[in-house]
Amino acid sequence: MSFDRLIKGIREKQNPTVAGLDPKLDFIPDYIKEQAYAAHGKTLEGAAAALLTFNKGLIDALCDIVPAVKPQAAYYEMYGWQGVRTLCETIAYAKEKGLFVITDGKRNDIGTTMEAYAKAHIGTTDVEGEKFDAFGSDALTVNAYLGSDGVKPLLEICKSQDKGIFVLVKTSNPSSGELQDRLLDDNATVYRTMGNMCENWGSEVMGENGYSSVGAVVGATYPAQLGELRKALPHTFFLVPGYGAQGGGAKDVAPAFDENGLGAIINSSRGIMCAWKKEGCDPTEYAAAARREAIRMRDEIIGHIGAIK
Amino acid sequence: MSFDRLIKGIREKQNPTVAGLDPKLDFIPDYIKEQAYAAHGKTLEGAAAALLTFNKGLIDALCDIVPAVKPQAAYYEMYGWQGVRTLCETIAYAKEKGLFVITDGKRNDIGTTMEAYAKAHIGTTDVEGEKFDAFGSDALTVNAYLGSDGVKPLLEICKSQDKGIFVLVKTSNPSSGELQDRLLDDNATVYRTMGNMCENWGSEVMGENGYSSVGAVVGATYPAQLGELRKALPHTFFLVPGYGAQGGGAKDVAPAFDENGLGAIINSSRGIMCAWKKEGCDPTEYAAAARREAIRMRDEIIGHIGAIK
Repeated sequence: MSFDRLIKGIREKQNPTVAGLDPKLDFIPDYIKEQAYAAHGKTLEGAAAALLTFNKGLIDALCDIVPAVKPQAAYYEMYGWQGVRTLCETIAYAKEKGLFVITDGKRNDIGTTMEAYAKAHIGTTDVEGEKFDAFGSDALTVNAYLGSDGVKPLLEICKSQDKGIFVLVKTSNPSSGELQDRLLDDNATVYRTMGNMCENWGSEVMGENGYSSVGAVVGATYPAQLGELRKALPHTFFLVPGYGAQGGGAKDVAPAFDENGLGAIINSSRGIMCAWKKEGCDPTEYAAAARREAIRMRDEIIGHIGAIK
Repeated sequence: MSFDRLIKGIREKQNPTVAGLDPKLDFIPDYIKEQAYAAHGKTLEGAAAALLTFNKGLIDALCDIVPAVKPQAAYYEMYGWQGVRTLCETIAYAKEKGLFVITDGKRNDIGTTMEAYAKAHIGTTDVEGEKFDAFGSDALTVNAYLGSDGVKPLLEICKSQDKGIFVLVKTSNPSSGELQDRLLDDNATVYRTMGNMCENWGSEVMGENGYSSVGAVVGATYPAQLGELRKALPHTFFLVPGYGAQGGGAKDVAPAFDENGLGAIINSSRGIMCAWKKEGCDPTEYAAAARREAIRMRDEIIGHIGAIK
C-alpha cells in the first residue's frame, strides 16, 4: 500500500521530511522570472513558466535528500489553468526523479463527485477506453467534513493503484480549534473523532509497515495533540505541516513519531523554498540554499528522534 | 454585495434555480464527442474540447431562463489541466451571457494559502502589477473545517470585489450526518454551529437585501434541517444541492425560502444536463431538452413558493 512506498523512501534517505512546493512569485529569484516574462510576457503564462523552472531547480537539488514533495494546489490555481499545467508538469518531473508526490488539495465532495477528484489526482481518467493520469500524484490531502461517502471513492483507488490520502484531523492554523477542538456529546473532540474515522477507513487498506493508506494531517503547531493522536491512532500515518515558518520546531514534531522513527512526515515549504532569501546568498544559488536547509532540517529532526528503523 | 447581484437575477427571471455544469463524458452526446476526438484525438485535450462545446450549448439554451450556473471543479480536474482550461473558458462564456457563476470547488486551507485560492477563484492575480482573473467566478463554495482564518481572506475579496462564498453547513449526501449531525457539548449540532459561524462571518459583508456575502450549502435531501436553518440563519443565503437526481423535490426545498421567496437558490445538475437522455429526444436537441427541464423545474418550484418579491 501507498505509504509503504513513502516509508521505503524515508528509510533509504533517513529523512522523514517532505519539501512543500508552494511557489509564490515572491519566492522566485528575479533572473528566473525575467527569462519567463521575456518568453511569455508578464502574464499567467509567464508566471506559470517561472514557477515550473523554479520547481525543477528545487526538485533537482532536493531529490536525493528528501523522499517526497508536496505541491500545494492553491499556488498553481492562482495562476489559472496555465498554473495548473505547471502543477501537472511539476508532479511528472518529481516522479521522474523518484520522489513520492503528495498533492495538497484538501479536496472534498459527495461520493459521485469525489470519484472524479479521486480519478483526477491519484487515479486515472478514462477517455473512450484510453487511460490517462490527469495529475498522477501518489497521495492527496482530503477534508472529510462530508463523512464516509466523500472518502470511499478514494479508498478504492488506494487499494487498486497503491495510493494514499491524508485526511485533515487537527490543522496547523491558529483558528483550527474553533471547530476541531470542540467537544462532542461523548466528550471526544471533533479532531479526535475525525482521527478515529481515519483508523476505521484505513482498516481496509493496511500496509506492511502497520500503517494504512489513510493518513492524517496534524499540525506541528499543536505538539500535545500530535502526541495524543500518535498514541490513539496507531495505524494512521501523519503529514505534519507547520514546521519552520509557521513556528513548529524539531522538539514540537518529535511526538508525531513512533518508536521506530516512523509514523510521520514533516513538511517545510517556505523554510526550504525561501532559504536563499534567509541566507542572503546569490539568487542563482536558490536551489543549493534549499538543499542546505533540507539537510539542516533532516539532521535536526533525526537528531531528536534518532535513526529511522 | 455579491448576493444582491444574484438576487437581482433571481427576481428578474423569477427563477431561484442554478444549473450545475458537471459534464462527465457519459452525459455528452456522441456527435459532440466525435467532433472533438476528430480534432484532438481520444485524449484529455479531446475530452476537454467536448466538455466546452457541450457547456456552451447548455449556456446558450439556459441563459435567459436561469440566473446562475454552477460548474463543479472536480469534473474539469478529471480531465487534467486541459479540463481546467475548459473550466476557465466555461466561466468566461457564462459571464459573457450575463450569468452569475458559482464555482463549486469546496476549497479550504490555512489563511495564507486560502488567500491564493481566493485570488484564484473570485479575486485577481497579480503578475508584476498586471491583474488577471485567473478563474473569475462570482462565488466559490468553501469548506470551513479549519475555522475563521481559512475564511477571512475570502471576506476581503467579497467586500472589495463584490463576490460571495457558500460555506458547507449541512451537505446533501447520505453520510453527511456522521460529523455534521453530531451534538457538541452545548447541545448544538456541528452543522448548526457551522451555520452560526456563517452568520458571524457574514455580519461584516451585509447586502441590501438582508443577506450577507457568506452563504451556506444546505442539502435538499434534509428538508427538516433546511427549515431549521432558514429560521436560525436569517442573513445567510442558501445554495441547495440535492434536487432531482439526488432525490429532493419542490416540496423538500420549499422550507429553504423566506416569505419573499428569497434566501435560497436550488441546484440541479444531472436533471438538466441529462434531460435529453431521460426524454429520449434526438441527441442534437440536448440543449433544448435541458431548457425544457429548467423551465419545468422553475415552474414546479415557483408553483410551490409563489412569485418572488
